[in-house]
Amino acid sequence: MKREMRPFTAIVPSPVVLLSVAGEDYPNIITLSWAANICSKPPSVAVGIRQNRFSYELISKANDFVLNIPTVDLLEATEFSGSKSGRDFNKFAECGLTPIPSKTVSSPMIKECPINIECIKKQILPIGVHDLFIAEVVKVHMNEDVLDEEGHLDLTKAKLFTYIPATGQYWSLGDKLESLD
Amino acid sequence: MKREMRPFTAIVPSPVVLLSVAGEDYPNIITLSWAANICSKPPSVAVGIRQNRFSYELISKANDFVLNIPTVDLLEATEFSGSKSGRDFNKFAECGLTPIPSKTVSSPMIKECPINIECIKKQILPIGVHDLFIAEVVKVHMNEDVLDEEGHLDLTKAKLFTYIPATGQYWSLGDKLESLD
Repeated sequence: MKREMRPFTAIVPSPVVLLSVAGEDYPNIITLSWAANICSKPPSVAVGIRQNRFSYELISKANDFVLNIPTVDLLEATEFSGSKSGRDFNKFAECGLTPIPSKTVSSPMIKECPINIECIKKQILPIGVHDLFIAEVVKVHMNEDVLDEEGHLDLTKAKLFTYIPATGQYWSLGDKLESLD
Repeated sequence: MKREMRPFTAIVPSPVVLLSVAGEDYPNIITLSWAANICSKPPSVAVGIRQNRFSYELISKANDFVLNIPTVDLLEATEFSGSKSGRDFNKFAECGLTPIPSKTVSSPMIKECPINIECIKKQILPIGVHDLFIAEVVKVHMNEDVLDEEGHLDLTKAKLFTYIPATGQYWSLGDKLESLD
């Protein structure tokens, strides 16, 4: 039996990213779940951001940002950066996170996140209460301690988590599923 | 220590959706990981699809589709529908899946998936090798057996999984993280 529900953004699970962006006084961080890989070549991502968010202004000025993937150890910073405004807080300082220079873009990376994705803004698409920022990935960094011997991401080392918009919950990853190929 | 890497679509984890779409002879299914919630109001999603995929044609004709969220029991169907073409296979029949009528759109839902999201295509945005389909969510269905007593999605009942583009692996969800609010 299926139950019919009002329409809502029901894709689950969703990624969680900490978007870092250059600012005038200090760089800012915003937690986003409306975020996705969208194209392999050129490697492109999209993030949905409300027009009234402080980071909306900052990205419009900087024309770039970094998507930083948090681990379960950064849940508190993830929640803080998703609920507070950079107009009121220096979130790097409040969360004890360290901005470090990116290779290609003006926005800093978050040192404590094991995966950092440097992005250059390509276009802003109005959708509704969120606008969609389309960006090209220009560089990726991964912590050596989350890589296996062949240099590939090892999820037994990087303790990632995911967001469930339908319930507002965060869930850790469990086990690798055996492919049937 | 961070290692610098070539640019690629490095957001992890990614959702996995089975997109079902009406067809001339039979409806089709395509597995997608380039998929995201992007806007709360109107509730909107985006999916990235290569121009040469059969479902690209079908969605362009139908002007709608359904995003069906698979469980770990449907891993085989997920892999089959991601690697085979609807030009060569009736994937519903091959995978033993059941198309059932949607409430609002012409494309059918997949009965065996516990979450079904009816979507109407709004625009197609060229990005690169993938085009981005922006769509509005017009109805959501969830199986009664994945809901808790209050009618909310219960992830201890719905065994969801996630995709890791960086490694090509599927991972189950683990545990609910305790919010620090």
